[in-house]
Formats: sequence, structure tokens, C-alpha cells
Amino acid sequence: MAPLEAAWPRSTPPEALAARRQRLRERVPGPLVFASGWARARNFPHNAYTYRAESHFLYLVGRPIEGAALVLDEAGARLYVPADDPGARLWHGPEPTAEDWSRELGLEVRSIDSLGSLPGAATLPPQDPSAAAWLTSRLGRPVVAGSGDRLAALDVPLAEAMIALRLVHDAAAVDQLRQAAHVTARAHLAGLRATRPGLREARVAAAMQAEISAHGMACAYEPIVTVHGEVLHARHKHGVLDPAGLLLADVGAETPEGWAADVTRTWPVSGRFSPTQRDMYDAVLTAQAAALAKVVAGARYRDVHLASQRALLECIVGLGILRGSAEQLAELHATALFYPHGVGHLLGLDVHDMEDLGDRAGYAPGRVRQADPTSRFLRLDRELEAGMLVTIEPGFYQIPELIARIEPGSVLDRALDRERLAQFSDVRGIRIEDDVLVTQTGYEILSQDIPKTARDIEAAMR
Amino acid sequence: MAPLEAAWPRSTPPEALAARRQRLRERVPGPLVFASGWARARNFPHNAYTYRAESHFLYLVGRPIEGAALVLDEAGARLYVPADDPGARLWHGPEPTAEDWSRELGLEVRSIDSLGSLPGAATLPPQDPSAAAWLTSRLGRPVVAGSGDRLAALDVPLAEAMIALRLVHDAAAVDQLRQAAHVTARAHLAGLRATRPGLREARVAAAMQAEISAHGMACAYEPIVTVHGEVLHARHKHGVLDPAGLLLADVGAETPEGWAADVTRTWPVSGRFSPTQRDMYDAVLTAQAAALAKVVAGARYRDVHLASQRALLECIVGLGILRGSAEQLAELHATALFYPHGVGHLLGLDVHDMEDLGDRAGYAPGRVRQADPTSRFLRLDRELEAGMLVTIEPGFYQIPELIARIEPGSVLDRALDRERLAQFSDVRGIRIEDDVLVTQTGYEILSQDIPKTARDIEAAMR
Repeated sequence: MAPLEAAWPRSTPPEALAARRQRLRERVPGPLVFASGWARARNFPHNAYTYRAESHFLYLVGRPIEGAALVLDEAGARLYVPADDPGARLWHGPEPTAEDWSRELGLEVRSIDSLGSLPGAATLPPQDPSAAAWLTSRLGRPVVAGSGDRLAALDVPLAEAMIALRLVHDAAAVDQLRQAAHVTARAHLAGLRATRPGLREARVAAAMQAEISAHGMACAYEPIVTVHGEVLHARHKHGVLDPAGLLLADVGAETPEGWAADVTRTWPVSGRFSPTQRDMYDAVLTAQAAALAKVVAGARYRDVHLASQRALLECIVGLGILRGSAEQLAELHATALFYPHGVGHLLGLDVHDMEDLGDRAGYAPGRVRQADPTSRFLRLDRELEAGMLVTIEPGFYQIPELIARIEPGSVLDRALDRERLAQFSDVRGIRIEDDVLVTQTGYEILSQDIPKTARDIEAAMR
Repeated sequence: MAPLEAAWPRSTPPEALAARRQRLRERVPGPLVFASGWARARNFPHNAYTYRAESHFLYLVGRPIEGAALVLDEAGARLYVPADDPGARLWHGPEPTAEDWSRELGLEVRSIDSLGSLPGAATLPPQDPSAAAWLTSRLGRPVVAGSGDRLAALDVPLAEAMIALRLVHDAAAVDQLRQAAHVTARAHLAGLRATRPGLREARVAAAMQAEISAHGMACAYEPIVTVHGEVLHARHKHGVLDPAGLLLADVGAETPEGWAADVTRTWPVSGRFSPTQRDMYDAVLTAQAAALAKVVAGARYRDVHLASQRALLECIVGLGILRGSAEQLAELHATALFYPHGVGHLLGLDVHDMEDLGDRAGYAPGRVRQADPTSRFLRLDRELEAGMLVTIEPGFYQIPELIARIEPGSVLDRALDRERLAQFSDVRGIRIEDDVLVTQTGYEILSQDIPKTARDIEAAMR
């Protein structure tokens, strides 16, 4: 019996892309230009990193066409693509021509060689330096790669219009995001099943990535698969899985059109949580539930964050790690000692959606980041709207650096029961992260197929 | 019983790195500066492609230290590294400090902030545009990313010295290359075992990549795993495995220090070659054997290439696809119809080693690429030396573009038996590629653990 072929990602229908372009044109006068960028050289010009088109281009064109540009102006939308290169065909096979793209996308498509200068056009700074240089030459003004957090005045209205569109996902975007979440679920199941004491972190990470690439997707970000859960963005993968320890896996897929998932689970290497691991796992899960209970259109995301911080604090007090009233400890920012990051962020075409524009997307006009330990790493402070996708990802971490920073003799120092904390030495770090679509009446968890309760995780590992 | 942890890559000993730096200093007067480069942003500044240091830096320092620079001058060697960032430690965990690197490498290490301008220093253009901009500011002259094929006069002696060193691998380099080949062998075995009719190419590619990343390595280049073997550098992976077809897999690992393997195998999806597939497979294997028979210190690589071309031609004549004398057909460049690329290339820190310097590494002084169809894609024309590593990778491909280009009524047109060729319709493309270390008396195949004969491949798939 032949195995079934893996389901392959569905594309965004051209009508949905046309509707996005139309909505953008209604909001900002053109001309507007969006470059897709080129693959970046790795160790020599012909050995490039896997190509990933610029996100704003993907939002409006839906296909990762290398070296292309979209122009929107009074005359409508025109896509400019590289001319067919018969020499390249020998090496890369037949690729879609301008005519093919025009048919597929229902869009006027021309050769990029025919695109002249575009003085006065607005754009958004790309990540690819070659695309930035190309835009500089076409627009006759400097466009610097990665400079979206310090926009030229001409580009600000375009950024604000794009943010308004991309903040609230249309049905086609939700379909892409569901696909990414679905494959991410398969990756996490593969990770749970691949876990065995004595293996390296890299082996579990490989099993998870394999599930993603087998389904025609890429990793939306460098996977974190670590026995050092206390390192928030751990990059090493040589650690050996200790049977008494936990493994934290923060891994998400990205569709070929660039739409991302971002999910974290933490599981016991042995397949069974120890009593202390289970207690702390349940505490983080309680903090996630408290956050989710606040998610609904109209709620302020900052309050979602504070609810999860407060819930975790109460659990930590309940477990006897901190002594005193939760009220007072919250004023001291005591939660930041164990949970120093924000409850989550926007998710869409980017895993931190539109972070290329700095805090402009994450923070509502007039709001800025707070400097206090509870909120300094919060990436989102807006009122939620139906159709927004956010992560909800509280955590508990024993970070030696943070504990060492406590001032001896301070209120916090006296509140911390170090002996009790030491009993949780088999809990280095726990994070539980889901992708949550805001609705009018609450929310929908796109990553809901991934085991999450301690019991479901243990069952999946048996 | 706990599974055994995967063997982890060994590092190059500091003495070997010191010896390389010393040999380079003896050949070119300093000051010389080598930048390691920074990770390149993918879709926003904090979401980067997996960092890969510049190859020349890796050759001399052996550790992928982001944002670092090596300076060689009369005073010796100094490594400049980024200052410790306590803020980053929260996210990425403790990283080696300047003192740690100094201890590990036995080298003077300073903060990069202490490095002033270096007027008159020679360098080699990096691939990373940020590193190029940094070098531009330090050297006070333009350094353009990816411009190694058009060097400034000041940098030519350095390029020639680096080429002289890197052409012939020292024992530490061979150890790295062996490790890469060893893990690559495991990847190809995983690919053979994962192949089932009805799966997608991506599933087999994922199984191969998983074996590489589970061992702490990366892919040295974007893997080619395709049912369209006739597309030389196929990039798509959605093809479904036809039980009657072949699967071509060109996949190689790279150690954490950047040393590469590059191996291709072609196997039948069903696990059994058809008679036509076996005949043509044996023809390509014969062409590889003819090439290998020429490999020895002192031989000219161009003659290795021509031997494989000639052997394949004779097989194709023997199979009745081309009629006439091999002598005459060779003069017509008839082999290029089915085998349009070179027999291989240099292999080392880059999969096309030192191709960042254009043809300067591959072609001996005074030699240039030939324009004829047999040799235009030959990447190497030097006398072989003991310690050089080259690929030997003949192939047979039915490329519609090339066959369509035959002039009607020409000698080649009359020589081609299209009916006979049509009988080989289940052979789209076959390539057999090994990594071959040149010795005084012949060669050693580093990738020898990978099944290669039709019989061994079938046995591995059972």
C-alpha cells in the first residue's frame, strides 16, 4: 500500500489579493512600490539562503517572485517581474513567465526592465539590501534596508495604511494562518514522539522541522528546542536530554506565501512530569487561561498581559516561592523575576507581525513602551479587534542573572523563599504559547490541536 | 534502554588554526583584516537567517563568531569580538566572552570597539553587506559585498595567498571534511529508506535534512531532491514520487565550522531499477569510473572532465542513442547534449570552494573558461595536488531545451536516434557525485560509505 502524499499548501486566491490592493489604494494615493527582494548570498554569490520574499509584497501579491516589484497608482496595479532567462532554465527548469503570472494572478504583468524611475512614490523599507539599493535608484532618494522603524515622512501614510489592513486578517489570511498552525501541530506531535532521554536537542528539533518541510513549509523562525528553557531564545542544540528534565520547544511553520505560526510547548523528557514540574506547569497554564479569559474584541492587550502576570504571581505565592500579598508583590514587579517578557505579540506574515516597522504596528498611536520590568518587553499595546491574531505565551523561568540582581535586604529579597525555589530545580523554564484569533465574542485558538494539559502531553508521549 | 546521543562535530584544534595564520603571514605582508559578518535579516531585523560566518574568516579562526574580525600584521594575530551584552544574555544565554575565546583559541582577543581604522590593510570582499560597510569604514576605501571576482589591486596578493593555502587541505581541514561526508552518508541512507511511491519529494528531502541537523550540522547548500533529475538545480519539492521513476538527491552537510560535503545519488522510487534505468545508471557510473581513473596528483582536472565525457559518449553510442564514431561525435560536442556541465569542482569551506573569488581559484593562472559546449561550465582547470578535494559528478539528462536546440538536418540531428532515446523515457536525469581527495598515488573517496552501484542501492532500499 503506497503512503498518501502529504497535503500541499493552498495558495491565496487572486481575488483576495486584488481586494487587498484595492483597499490599500483607497487609503493612500499612489504611486506606491513594493519590492519582493532577492535571495541573500550565504558564502558565495551562487550559494544563497532559501529565498523569502518581503512581507508587504507577499501581502499584496501572494507569490514569492524573486526580483519583482508591484506598483500601485491611479492606473491600477502592475506587477513587474524579471525577464525570462533561457540560460537559467537549464539549471532551474522552466519558471513561470510574465504571461503565466498574469494569467494566474489576473493582473497586468510586465518585465521589470521596462520599469523606469518612480519619483514621488512611497514605499516601505525592505530587509534585502539589494532591494533597498534598487528602490533607491528608482525613487531617487535613499531607501535603507531594515530602516522601517525610522520612516521617511513620505512613507508614513503608507505604513499606517498597511498596518490598518494587516492588523485585521481577512478570510484568505486566516486560511493561510490555519494551514501554518495545522502543520505546526504535526511538528509538535513529532517532537513529543521523538523525545527520548539521551538524545540531543538537535534530534528532536530535526524531527519537528522535518514535519514542517515535508509539508512544503519553512520554519517561520529559527526553532528553539532546548533543555535550557530559562534561555528565552536559546540557539544551541547540542544539549543532551536529561531524563529528569524538561524540554522546551518553540517552533512554528510558515506557508510558502509567508504566513506564520508560533507555538511553544514544554514537556518532560521522561514522558512524566515530576510533582514540582507538574505544579509549575499548571501554574503557567493557569496564567495562560487568565490571559485567554481577557481576549475579546475591544479588550486592551496590555490588560491581557497584566492578567497573565497577576495569575502567575498568585500561583507562585500559592506554591510558597514568594511570601506576601500578591497585590504588594505586583507593585514590586515581582513577576518579572520569573516571567520577564510580554504575554505575546501580533502574528501574521511575520512571526512578530510588522515588527519591520518598529513599534508602530504593535503600539496604538500615542502609546509607547513602558520602562518598568513588567512591561518593557511587551510588544503589543492596542485594543484587540475581531480578526487580529496574537500569541498568548506566559512562562516561568529560573534565570540566574535575574535572581542575582535582587538587592540583598530588599523587600523582594525577603519575600523570596530560596529554599522553596530550590525544590523546583528540575524546572529551568516553561513556556506555553498558542496562536489566538480574536473574535467578537472571545477567541479561537488556531493551535488547539496540540496537546497542552499535562495529562494530554503525557498521553501523547506514551 | 536510553538511545545513544548523536556524535557531535569535533572542532579544529587551535594549533592548526595558528599554523594557517602563520603560513598566510609568511606569504603576504599585513596588515590583513577578515570580517566574520553578521546574520542577515529575513523578514524583519530580529528574524534572521541562521548565521553562517564568512569562509575566509572561518579558515583562520575556526569558530563562527558573529560580528568579529581577525587582524594579522607584523605584531601577530588579534581577534576582535563584540563586547559582552548583558541585555542579550537574557534572550540568548551566556555566550563566550573575549577571555573565553582567548583561552580556547590561544589568541589575543580584544573588544571590536577598540579597533580603529586600518588604512592600507588588505581584505577579501565578504558576502554580508553589513560586513562590507564595516570594512569600508575601517579601510577607508569601498569594499563591496560579493565582489571577489573583481578585486582591488591591493587585495590580489592576499587572494592568491589564500587560494594557495585553501587549495590544499591540511589535516585539520580533512578531518572536518570527513565529518561532513560521514553525516552526508547518513543523510543519503535516510533518503534511500524514506523513499516510497506516492510521497512528495519534500518528505524525502526532510528525512535527509533531519539526519544532517540532528548531528549538529547544516545543509551546505539548498538540497536538490527531485523527480525531475533533468533540472540540474531543481528547487521545487512538491513532486509526487512515481513508482516508475527515479529520484535524484544532491544533498551535502556542512560542519559548524563551515566545511562542506556535496554528494549526489539517484535511485529508483520502487527500489528496483528498470532495465533502461539500470543501463543508463551503469553508463553514468562508467563515466565516473573513467574520471576517477585519471585522478592523481599532477593530473590536469580538465583531462578528468574529458575522460568522463568521452566514457559517457561511448556508453551512449553503445546504447544506440547516438550513431557514429565516438571520435567524430566528440568533435561535435555531442556529449554536451546529455551531460552539459563540468565533471566537478573544488570542495572545501564552500561547496564550490572559493567561488567567491570568481574563477581565480578554479582556473590556474593564464587559463580561462573555454566557450565550447563541452567545457563552458567547467569550474576547475588546474593540475591536481595531493590534498585537494574535488567532486566527481558526471550525469545523463534528457533536457528538452537542449534537444530542441539541435539544428534539423545537422550531423548531430542525423546521429541522434530519437526512437531509441524515447525508450529511455523513464530516465529523466541521473547524476552520481562523490567527494574525492587527491593523493600522491591516486585518490580517496570521502563519501565512499554511500551505496553507489545499482545493486548496493537496491539492497539499501530493501
